[in-house]
Amino acid sequence: MSRTAERFDAFRRLHDQDKPLLLPNAWDFASAAALAAQGFPAIGSTSLGVAIASGKRDAAGATRDETLALARRISGLCLVTVDLESGFDERSPAVAELAAELADTGIVGVNLEDGRADSTLAPIGQQQELIAAVAERVPGLFVNARIDSYWIAGWPATRDDAIRRAQAYQAAGASGIFVPGAPDETTIRALVEAVELPLNLLFIPGQFGLRRLGELGVRRVSCGSLLFRVALHAAVTTVAQIREGDPVEAPGIPSYAEVQALVAGSG
Amino acid sequence: MSRTAERFDAFRRLHDQDKPLLLPNAWDFASAAALAAQGFPAIGSTSLGVAIASGKRDAAGATRDETLALARRISGLCLVTVDLESGFDERSPAVAELAAELADTGIVGVNLEDGRADSTLAPIGQQQELIAAVAERVPGLFVNARIDSYWIAGWPATRDDAIRRAQAYQAAGASGIFVPGAPDETTIRALVEAVELPLNLLFIPGQFGLRRLGELGVRRVSCGSLLFRVALHAAVTTVAQIREGDPVEAPGIPSYAEVQALVAGSG
Repeated sequence: MSRTAERFDAFRRLHDQDKPLLLPNAWDFASAAALAAQGFPAIGSTSLGVAIASGKRDAAGATRDETLALARRISGLCLVTVDLESGFDERSPAVAELAAELADTGIVGVNLEDGRADSTLAPIGQQQELIAAVAERVPGLFVNARIDSYWIAGWPATRDDAIRRAQAYQAAGASGIFVPGAPDETTIRALVEAVELPLNLLFIPGQFGLRRLGELGVRRVSCGSLLFRVALHAAVTTVAQIREGDPVEAPGIPSYAEVQALVAGSG
Repeated sequence: MSRTAERFDAFRRLHDQDKPLLLPNAWDFASAAALAAQGFPAIGSTSLGVAIASGKRDAAGATRDETLALARRISGLCLVTVDLESGFDERSPAVAELAAELADTGIVGVNLEDGRADSTLAPIGQQQELIAAVAERVPGLFVNARIDSYWIAGWPATRDDAIRRAQAYQAAGASGIFVPGAPDETTIRALVEAVELPLNLLFIPGQFGLRRLGELGVRRVSCGSLLFRVALHAAVTTVAQIREGDPVEAPGIPSYAEVQALVAGSG
């Protein structure tokens, strides 16, 4: 088995454990390296983080270069899957080529969403063609098919439509199904039962915890943009504390030297 | 007065207020935009953050391109001064050209440190030449001369040497003096008295607060890499909470839509 195939296989096996795979999402080398240093066997990327970090909008198909550059930087840290939005290109073959380029950097998986930049959902057949193109171009790559019906504000989502999409994407060759914002336990259970593929849900503060999601049959729980948004919030909160003269609690904040050491070969 | 000169002047005047100028430091567009949105009239960059975010070491002279790219992205957000380490080039004219390029993007200031990649301090005359080259090339640009004697671990710093350097850099045309890690009130007072230029200190948790630094005569307090390190820590802490099933406190964390809105023209 080639090194690439071994890594593909190792990532796939992470979806078949007693507990759901908890996948933290990074937006730059620093966050990826800091998360990998915590012992997570795999990390994802957050398209919101990658986009806003470079001054571009998310879900606008504008960050192909940034996503590829990030993949090159972080693919050696641990197993890495990247968020491709809807592929950064309307042509399926072009998205398949990007997936192949990413796999060459050592990436083991991609997320492909059916939401489009105009806040509509792609027709099922069109999204199936995209998934099939990527799955056929890079056998073994984990193609996580994201269903955005519960995610796009105002979209008239129904459980039946989500199930129909999940089954169609499975038939097209997806490796997993990702339904951010799945609203309730009945829907989650129905999705788990509707497909053979591992179901991925987004962790949302105040909603289901990791343990409960595991009980419901969810096999992967990702953090989406949460850690990126938490990081921004912490920076803003800390400088407000400094401005107000409130104490800044330092325990646990990595030192300059510890952060430098995140770059291999330094220190 | 040209628009550029007006901005240079506005930044200079921020060093002449009742309280010290509190300067938060950003490492990417997202952090810069989030900080600017808090109403800070000026922000700086952190070379550690810029370097590690792109997978490179800090203080190794390796992030000229990343620094310039960041400057282009954020210079329109508010008044922005950028950390140039020691200039990313050993030749003073090349550093002066970089400063001119940065000024063309709308940047109003630069930090230039006398620490070198090999953890030594540049000879005073060499650093004077560098400061003079930049100050002459871009009149009005705020050239913040950083003295690293207290900052480089193990360097035999003395108060007399720091004062000698501060006065020499002032004579060379610096606009401000920055002494990260100045160890005590006596040293800070001595530096304030030794030069006409505004003194910049680094905020360090558990040491002097903003108010006390103001009382000592400090005119600018910057955050260095602190906010970047806080942000990384928050991301890592939050995913650990998720893993352990601990509650993730969400109040104040910006929403997806709020973060998208940091990019002008979005939303």
